[in-house]
Amino acid sequence: MHEIRKDPILGRWVIIASERNNRPTDFTVNREQPTGGICPFCTDSESHTPPEILAFRPGEPRPNAPGWQVRVVPNKYPALRIEGDLGRRAVGMYDMMNAIGAHEVVIESPLHHVQLADMAPEQVVRVLDAYLQRMLDLQQDRRFRYVLIFKNQGAEAGATLEHAHTQIIATPVVPKRVSEEIEGARRHFDLHERCVFCDIVSQESEAGTRVVEENASFVALEPFASRFPYETWILPRIHASRFETLTRDELERLSSILRLTLQRLDIALERVPFNYVLHTAPSNSADVSEFYHWHLEIMPKLTKVAGFEWGSDFFINPTPPEQAAILLRRVRLE
Amino acid sequence: MHEIRKDPILGRWVIIASERNNRPTDFTVNREQPTGGICPFCTDSESHTPPEILAFRPGEPRPNAPGWQVRVVPNKYPALRIEGDLGRRAVGMYDMMNAIGAHEVVIESPLHHVQLADMAPEQVVRVLDAYLQRMLDLQQDRRFRYVLIFKNQGAEAGATLEHAHTQIIATPVVPKRVSEEIEGARRHFDLHERCVFCDIVSQESEAGTRVVEENASFVALEPFASRFPYETWILPRIHASRFETLTRDELERLSSILRLTLQRLDIALERVPFNYVLHTAPSNSADVSEFYHWHLEIMPKLTKVAGFEWGSDFFINPTPPEQAAILLRRVRLE
Repeated sequence: MHEIRKDPILGRWVIIASERNNRPTDFTVNREQPTGGICPFCTDSESHTPPEILAFRPGEPRPNAPGWQVRVVPNKYPALRIEGDLGRRAVGMYDMMNAIGAHEVVIESPLHHVQLADMAPEQVVRVLDAYLQRMLDLQQDRRFRYVLIFKNQGAEAGATLEHAHTQIIATPVVPKRVSEEIEGARRHFDLHERCVFCDIVSQESEAGTRVVEENASFVALEPFASRFPYETWILPRIHASRFETLTRDELERLSSILRLTLQRLDIALERVPFNYVLHTAPSNSADVSEFYHWHLEIMPKLTKVAGFEWGSDFFINPTPPEQAAILLRRVRLE
Repeated sequence: MHEIRKDPILGRWVIIASERNNRPTDFTVNREQPTGGICPFCTDSESHTPPEILAFRPGEPRPNAPGWQVRVVPNKYPALRIEGDLGRRAVGMYDMMNAIGAHEVVIESPLHHVQLADMAPEQVVRVLDAYLQRMLDLQQDRRFRYVLIFKNQGAEAGATLEHAHTQIIATPVVPKRVSEEIEGARRHFDLHERCVFCDIVSQESEAGTRVVEENASFVALEPFASRFPYETWILPRIHASRFETLTRDELERLSSILRLTLQRLDIALERVPFNYVLHTAPSNSADVSEFYHWHLEIMPKLTKVAGFEWGSDFFINPTPPEQAAILLRRVRLE
């Protein structure tokens, strides 16, 4: 059984694997692992994954068989397990609990070599719709405080399988970064009676210097204090604390801006590996709705994060976001 | 001129390079760069670095010539520049300032192929003594709020030169991570009237399960909520908020435990790349002395940090610290 432990100084949570058979040089973190040459995410490999939780299939709905467009399955090597109680307890001065949660994989396409940026617009809508449906479902489980949706594309970004996929982890605690964002946004609201993200959207849309792409509902921009070169955020123009309240129209516009933004990054940065992470309000947190504003953070992997950053949470970014925005806007899309 | 910008939500600071001649795929971050086959840190290459700030030389003291044991020079490609005023200003809703600070390199040995773990005990003392002397000197400059000392060993840990060296960056703001540690330690002190790090040292020494190495003044341990496999902290047993108040005896004991701990990591993990970062109280912050406790955090680079960690500050560690401690204790040192 894995454990979740809390750092007593920073309040940061860590999932500790308790399988004791790792040799010191075995570091395939238990996310996903290749299964001997066969890609478990391809069509016709459905038996290589645990039974599906959700799938979009036109026509006859036969589960765990070919014919699907998007498929969500439990992670075969989950960091958190769905069964059991939390078992919150103290170990001397320390806090810990059982590693209870959900760990799922959204398989974004039946095809092996198509990445999200290359998919047809309606396929990207299906992928985001799968995020939304899984989030709504996982929020029903009262043990889970947060549903974290993130994507690693490319080995340098931590992906262990090439086939396009996204991970969903539901956690029994609110991750530290999310709590910090909420606290920061709350401080701004207390001072100004405005959402800090709405202020950003408004100032950036007006200035335009850091905007990469926009449509009626969303703006994609390089943040003023980007940690990484070409870091790009996508934010809704109209205030909303939760991704999962998106209407169908908004979902389509989000798919469109995400697809175009990833295409710009792909072309400008020669298929750069990246991570993206959906930042949304914690489950059952109605009190943050006035000042928290959901958004997607895309982080291309171009630089190495070293001692300076780890020790300080202070970053050195060699590319000004204004310059990155110019380059990304200049990309000619077909 | 580089800039320092603040994230308006999290309060995190970022150094943004404003040289506008980077192509999108040029990402040699401006730390150090190789100079055409010649190692600028080797003896007889003294002219390849800016003039030295400090050097330990037995006998005749002729600066910037061979004969030194440890040498401190300005970084040739500094992230922060020493000359100028801070120019704190607002850009609409955002905060920024000029990238003023110091960026120095401690060259740990005149020899190219010797890493810190391999050096004679008295050489490690000299390296740490150079840290201490530079920290005391940099704290005289009232523009600087923090002196960050960190080491990247190995390309995977972000080192761009192989020759053993440490970097020192003095910053005009307190890094976010340090502020968080101080706040966490303050909360613990407010509740318990005790230093949280002293509590950790005391609980860990008693239990012994996560201890790797100890001596009269220091303990090296795997923290309870280790983010990374084989993450190792070295803490002073007796409460002290500042590294730079070390006595000569303590400096020798710190050198000894650091050297032995790095040797254990080197042997157990086959010369693993690592970062270490000195965590000490900010300059001119007498008010934290009761509850902040300086320490050194060593982070071996065995796993890739991916979207999950970046999005959440929530980590998955595949090696329990208790297991790592057993393995490190078992290493036979000569």
